[in-house]
Amino acid sequence: MNTNHIQIQDEILEQIDQHESFCVVGHIRPDGDCIGSQIGLALALKSQGKKVVCWNQDDVPSKLEFLVPNNLMQKPEPGQTFDCVIATDCASADRLGETGNCIGDRKIMINIDHHTGNTRYGDLNWVNSKKPSTGELIYDLCTHANWEISPAIATCLFTATSTDTGSFMYPTTKPETYRTAAELVEQGANLSKVCEEVYQSYPLCRVRLMRLLFNNFKLTHENQVAYFWLKKEHFTRSGASHADSEGLIDHLRDMDPVIIACVFEEIEPELIRISLRSKNKRLLVNKIASQFGGGGHHAAAGARIQGKPATIQRKVIKACREAVDALSKPKNGK
Amino acid sequence: MNTNHIQIQDEILEQIDQHESFCVVGHIRPDGDCIGSQIGLALALKSQGKKVVCWNQDDVPSKLEFLVPNNLMQKPEPGQTFDCVIATDCASADRLGETGNCIGDRKIMINIDHHTGNTRYGDLNWVNSKKPSTGELIYDLCTHANWEISPAIATCLFTATSTDTGSFMYPTTKPETYRTAAELVEQGANLSKVCEEVYQSYPLCRVRLMRLLFNNFKLTHENQVAYFWLKKEHFTRSGASHADSEGLIDHLRDMDPVIIACVFEEIEPELIRISLRSKNKRLLVNKIASQFGGGGHHAAAGARIQGKPATIQRKVIKACREAVDALSKPKNGK
Repeated sequence: MNTNHIQIQDEILEQIDQHESFCVVGHIRPDGDCIGSQIGLALALKSQGKKVVCWNQDDVPSKLEFLVPNNLMQKPEPGQTFDCVIATDCASADRLGETGNCIGDRKIMINIDHHTGNTRYGDLNWVNSKKPSTGELIYDLCTHANWEISPAIATCLFTATSTDTGSFMYPTTKPETYRTAAELVEQGANLSKVCEEVYQSYPLCRVRLMRLLFNNFKLTHENQVAYFWLKKEHFTRSGASHADSEGLIDHLRDMDPVIIACVFEEIEPELIRISLRSKNKRLLVNKIASQFGGGGHHAAAGARIQGKPATIQRKVIKACREAVDALSKPKNGK
Repeated sequence: MNTNHIQIQDEILEQIDQHESFCVVGHIRPDGDCIGSQIGLALALKSQGKKVVCWNQDDVPSKLEFLVPNNLMQKPEPGQTFDCVIATDCASADRLGETGNCIGDRKIMINIDHHTGNTRYGDLNWVNSKKPSTGELIYDLCTHANWEISPAIATCLFTATSTDTGSFMYPTTKPETYRTAAELVEQGANLSKVCEEVYQSYPLCRVRLMRLLFNNFKLTHENQVAYFWLKKEHFTRSGASHADSEGLIDHLRDMDPVIIACVFEEIEPELIRISLRSKNKRLLVNKIASQFGGGGHHAAAGARIQGKPATIQRKVIKACREAVDALSKPKNGK
């Protein structure tokens, strides 16, 4: 297993060595691990003298903007070509969104990710689902390559590692994750900036969204399932954008005795995005999400579902209840 | 400096070696660092064959109860004596509260703490304010002593380290803090349990308190000062206890552009507890707290103030505004 990971890193480094121009892309609705990995890798490539741009379909969330140097995030011109495209933290070609259209013309596509369900859409695929963040993979790649990790790179990779582990809180966090964090701080990761920008700077429009959540969430199934509808009017009333709603679901998950949290978000009148969180190791929300054409991690997953909101709510909550009930059923053993 | 820390640890270990019966005490309104350090140390002492009880004036918060084995937390009987009393995470004899009365009769008192303003009230004082948690000091003591760290001890010390650094988020977190976390996880710290119990199990009464906070907090001084009154009726209406309100202030602090957050809590009609948080390195809330007879850390401090609520609010908010204004004043240079 380890040998494989070293071999694939060697192959990736060989490809990087052979090429000049790079586009580093991430997933739709980019989060801290996506942006941190993407910008961290882009800066590392630039420090090796490469020509690099980054691109995502959706904007960088404002709390992560401090990670992105001017002019690094640039939508490729029509007809612009790259030697090499690298996707970070993106489980499937689908989740590249419109980015996919901009990067069709390239010699090689490299896919670096930690999602279990990664569809291996690259020419070279380095997928390690044992790592709690893609940021840690990029860190491993940089150290394996013996590239210098500047304070800016360290800050990006620290942000990636920190956000995808809930600030080193989730049980997915490994001893080596903490050691990676230690090394990134030693290499100049700006902890103070990350803490303030990423975790302690919720804009007041987000605070209004929180108020709406606390006033309107619902509990069902003996308070084991919590859910909330993020409606278009909530965004209008609060002045918040979709990016501001990231992580809102954690407040539902963190209630006792909630086991599954679900946020329904009205994307279009009959297109609903669901986000799911589980806090029971045996309750895998990516299984629920996959019933609706989505996916994700065991503890955090999502899907986009077409249909009438009331029907979708009924079906999703039913699936959640069944998943909770299955926990107390005796195992199918002999 | 380091030599001093080793010397004092040697002295502490010598005292532990020479004595048989121990009482480990913590501060009023114990938090994760207090309970984690206290129980972690008590378990370590027990594993060395010592007779140990623990005691605090106030109850263990429910989210930390999983750390405390049956019968370890016991109010000393009247007249009960101890060879050695060890206070963990307690900045002053005052903050021991009523515990102080139970432990008067002892041969030696040892004070292990990381608060800057520690009053060195022990016979032996090990105060290291460079450490973000007392938990890390206890970990250092255990490893210095070559004591085995059981999974239960590791879970206690991990909880201590994690809670006092905001889950390794605050800029006070040091590279060695992450390394300590890595080692504690390797020694069996139950990350899954800590995550669920400490961070993801807010009782519904606390959720109701959150709702009250989001519906009633105030912003002033161009939204740079946020405050909230925790009134007796809030506790009645929500069914929450004082322990449930711990950390509520973080939601005020984490708003942008808030610099200082303040929670006023009605203890008695004319006795108000204030809690203060700062997110600017140059704005030291322990200085504000000390104007009102309190103290604490740079970023987190508090005080108990007697007087009319309206008067106290006016004075405290004035002090907060002045502290914010002082940030933009040119330095007192030549």
